[in-house]
Amino acid sequence: MFQTFGSETHPDQGPPRLAALRRAMKTAGVDAFLVPRQDAWQGEYVAPADARLAWLTGFTGSAGFAVVLPDQAAVFVDGRYRVQVRDQVADVFKPVDWPETSLADWLRAALPSGGKVRFDPWLHTSGAVKELREKLNGTTIELSPGENLVDQIWTDRPARPDAPFVSYATAYAGETHDAKRARIGAALKADSAILTSPDSIAWLLNIRGRDIERNPVPQAFAQVHRDGTVDLFALAGKADALADHLGSEVHVHQIGSFLDHIAKGSGPVQVHAATLPYIVQETLEAAGIDIVEGPDPCALPKACKNETELAGSRAAHLRDAAAMVRFLAWLDATAPHGGLTEIDVVKRLEGFRRETNALLDVSFETICGAGAHGAIVHYRVTEETNAPVTPGALLLVDSGGQYLDGTTDITRTIAIGTPPKDAITSYTAVLRGMIAVSMARFPKGVAGRDLDALARTPLWQMGRDYDHGTGHGVGAYLSVHEGPQGISRRNMVPLEPGMILSNEPGYYREGEFGIRIENLIATKVAGDITGADDRPMYDFETLTWVPMDRRLIDVSQLTSTERGWLNAYHAEVLDKVSPLVDGDALDWLQAACTEL
Amino acid sequence: MFQTFGSETHPDQGPPRLAALRRAMKTAGVDAFLVPRQDAWQGEYVAPADARLAWLTGFTGSAGFAVVLPDQAAVFVDGRYRVQVRDQVADVFKPVDWPETSLADWLRAALPSGGKVRFDPWLHTSGAVKELREKLNGTTIELSPGENLVDQIWTDRPARPDAPFVSYATAYAGETHDAKRARIGAALKADSAILTSPDSIAWLLNIRGRDIERNPVPQAFAQVHRDGTVDLFALAGKADALADHLGSEVHVHQIGSFLDHIAKGSGPVQVHAATLPYIVQETLEAAGIDIVEGPDPCALPKACKNETELAGSRAAHLRDAAAMVRFLAWLDATAPHGGLTEIDVVKRLEGFRRETNALLDVSFETICGAGAHGAIVHYRVTEETNAPVTPGALLLVDSGGQYLDGTTDITRTIAIGTPPKDAITSYTAVLRGMIAVSMARFPKGVAGRDLDALARTPLWQMGRDYDHGTGHGVGAYLSVHEGPQGISRRNMVPLEPGMILSNEPGYYREGEFGIRIENLIATKVAGDITGADDRPMYDFETLTWVPMDRRLIDVSQLTSTERGWLNAYHAEVLDKVSPLVDGDALDWLQAACTEL
Repeated sequence: MFQTFGSETHPDQGPPRLAALRRAMKTAGVDAFLVPRQDAWQGEYVAPADARLAWLTGFTGSAGFAVVLPDQAAVFVDGRYRVQVRDQVADVFKPVDWPETSLADWLRAALPSGGKVRFDPWLHTSGAVKELREKLNGTTIELSPGENLVDQIWTDRPARPDAPFVSYATAYAGETHDAKRARIGAALKADSAILTSPDSIAWLLNIRGRDIERNPVPQAFAQVHRDGTVDLFALAGKADALADHLGSEVHVHQIGSFLDHIAKGSGPVQVHAATLPYIVQETLEAAGIDIVEGPDPCALPKACKNETELAGSRAAHLRDAAAMVRFLAWLDATAPHGGLTEIDVVKRLEGFRRETNALLDVSFETICGAGAHGAIVHYRVTEETNAPVTPGALLLVDSGGQYLDGTTDITRTIAIGTPPKDAITSYTAVLRGMIAVSMARFPKGVAGRDLDALARTPLWQMGRDYDHGTGHGVGAYLSVHEGPQGISRRNMVPLEPGMILSNEPGYYREGEFGIRIENLIATKVAGDITGADDRPMYDFETLTWVPMDRRLIDVSQLTSTERGWLNAYHAEVLDKVSPLVDGDALDWLQAACTEL
Repeated sequence: MFQTFGSETHPDQGPPRLAALRRAMKTAGVDAFLVPRQDAWQGEYVAPADARLAWLTGFTGSAGFAVVLPDQAAVFVDGRYRVQVRDQVADVFKPVDWPETSLADWLRAALPSGGKVRFDPWLHTSGAVKELREKLNGTTIELSPGENLVDQIWTDRPARPDAPFVSYATAYAGETHDAKRARIGAALKADSAILTSPDSIAWLLNIRGRDIERNPVPQAFAQVHRDGTVDLFALAGKADALADHLGSEVHVHQIGSFLDHIAKGSGPVQVHAATLPYIVQETLEAAGIDIVEGPDPCALPKACKNETELAGSRAAHLRDAAAMVRFLAWLDATAPHGGLTEIDVVKRLEGFRRETNALLDVSFETICGAGAHGAIVHYRVTEETNAPVTPGALLLVDSGGQYLDGTTDITRTIAIGTPPKDAITSYTAVLRGMIAVSMARFPKGVAGRDLDALARTPLWQMGRDYDHGTGHGVGAYLSVHEGPQGISRRNMVPLEPGMILSNEPGYYREGEFGIRIENLIATKVAGDITGADDRPMYDFETLTWVPMDRRLIDVSQLTSTERGWLNAYHAEVLDKVSPLVDGDALDWLQAACTEL
């Protein structure tokens, strides 16, 4: 099993660790120390050696930070984690609602005049430090980078991950790293750019890593030059086996020499302030090197998958669909008798994916929420929370796989026995929103923000909504959450052909049930329409081919167009997936795809 | 008649005026002079005395600017005016596509090293000058404010408008200016704010003006202080009759003392860089006064109409609807016989509005486009362009009235005889988009940008689109185009209760026909829905009550929900407007509102 079900949290260890940190703060002469969830790479997952926030406080959410003062300690978490944090941290840590309360406001209120705040300059971005400094303007609070005090007291800290990087074949990547380096170098706004996002480095050099779970990214830093050459900085030994793959234009260095190396270089240097560790900015400035702020130069090219990557994604999704269909057939045959738990379901699903003999990892911890647990948007089942899958409840299963040819992410909500009251009406409204995005056709220039309302309109009409974005970008055997593309009110990036996105509206009734339906889709140039104007239009190709639960669909709520889409979708699911399954799963699939 | 049909342009006078301007430039020692369309108030209309661009070049569009050099002269216009500008200016002026070509780029290419560019610091905003300076950074071009050289040579310049301001009764405004001044003053981000937008001053002080046509705004400047007092700067005599209305907390000054007055004041002062004349910024800086950039403090409060203003708007719209119904009945009875021209139609429509005995002005020049003219989005008929209204064509009529209780703006597209091929399919798609916005229900925080796609989806599905926003803000007996609210991909302002917007999708087939359907709508708190969650939702109240042309509707293209909306709309039109019309108009209305 990739997924584990431990609670990973030890609230009882918080108080002694906090006391030790306060002793270190006293010795260092600081009044406050910041402990973010992030590591230097600013990703969604961190290695055990970087899980400082969880080690100190017990809080294991994917975002948040602690602020420790001599007489109080706060854990800042957003709306997703307000329940979880109370279960995971000891009373010595006070949860703070974030971003409602800003760090700057909290520090102003909590610190004495002249208070000294220390932060680890690797863990905070230059953009975040700049913003915090601006907000503290006019106060006497001193914000200074310095040694990480948690690292000082963390005596049994796990080792840094040291698995070697591997090359990612052009047969999957669709473009050599020579070609990528040449075009990225040529498009720079400066003489070079600093890359600190692991998935950008992975994409640029056609490499993958095993440094953190779920996302096959390499922990490294890089500097790409206008001539297409790259300096790659990694832990000793990680890139040794890649000499042939990387060739003569990629120079591998010890990760410890990164700052010295860039300080000796020339400028101007392009940086992405939202992901750049503060210490890199500080180093460049100290060296007198001109800095040009801009986007990560790999982010947009990486998001626009080429034909090879799209073909890989299609293949991965069909393989994954067969596993999902076998899983759903098993679930329908088993769950109504009772006796299953959420963990049973997660294990069996991972089992079906493993039986493809192609699964390299799950692409994130499966969210498997029975009944009321379905309403916890980021629910991760543990031995402590593990609930029975009871007939009469909904089961929400959000899962995905990492395959060499692509990353998948799919949510299906399933009725176990007779669904609860109002589940059908709600499910159908969510489905209508999912169909509206699937069917969208739009001109160049339209961003995810412009389409977000299409997914919500059926719910809005019922006075309902969901408190998350409609879709996130998805990588090609990379991070299941990638930017810059997305479908939400925050995302103003124009959609471009090749971008893979999730399309996942939902509806959550706290304490009762959760509904989410998710397919992955890829932006493409739309086919011609007879009689249309000569306007270049885009639309979406569906990548995910798994039936919707027909027991939860009220056909009378659908327009004829929506019903037509759904029947065509199910017909295509049957056509594509039936050759890949047999026996009971095939019987189940045929029944699930019957015209509605 | 308010509307006139002269061409207002004299291309033949361009060359001698340009020659005179160049002589003045030579005397002044400048290499380039900028001639914008705008006056100091940055509104959509200018007084004849401020129509410098039209006087010099002949171009009468509502946006654009000329740049005059010793050896060349350019007129920068956007996509709306590319055809018009060619008809209106002499060959000595070269049209330039704007914003595709930026002024900075054009100046770089056209000017010699060290070239001196002069601009009138009243006519360019501090924001625009700052942006231009940033773009010219690194060049040797000098950009300097100075005396307006057009004004030097414009010997027969019309007098400045001098009609007195009038008070706007609380019975219409719904809030005294004492109350408005107190709450605006209390909400300032600085000790005072400079107001240079006439509709902000009109709203704040409950006054109106007659300084320019179409918009009843006062040409004035003002400074509002934290204690709610206001200094008002206006041409001598304009506010004399308002002493009682303005009271003791509004101090009236000569407009000529504006700069001296603010220079003698204290800071910090809040300014809105996008509308502030550059000279005001320069004056404050020279006086050493701290400047705080922010929004115009009246813009958002003005946009959120109170109950009295909304009641006024409803009354104005019913009155206007009766005029429109009488007009449409007349048109249906007359046009199919042939013999009408676009000007005939505009005159008759203004006549019906005048017959309400309440019309103070049209709210903009009626756009009346027969056949191919309908595809020119901002078409204004002149004696030269006046086309017959031919059976077999569509007629697009976009018009509105200024009434004391409200401003209206409505577009209806009418089939004259048998409509052209594909007109019905296109009209129905446009109508579906209009209905989608009318029916929208959405949570707090949603902006016009989030709803824009709802209006376009039916067209996008056909591979079509329209190149204008879906809706603009509308004032309360003020400007028919007001911000900050709007429905377009550019508008990120959250919609708030009381905001009046237009809802006007369209479809244009160049050389053949144009379709636009426009109702005004007002944002409101949505009514309760049984079974809905406890989420505060907003929706729109429709203000415009005039039938759609049923001959252009293909009912089979509508969903049952859309058809239901349309039938309910027509039933309400009949209910509201039938008491206000009689005879043939009533017969016509009853037929037009029959269930579809």
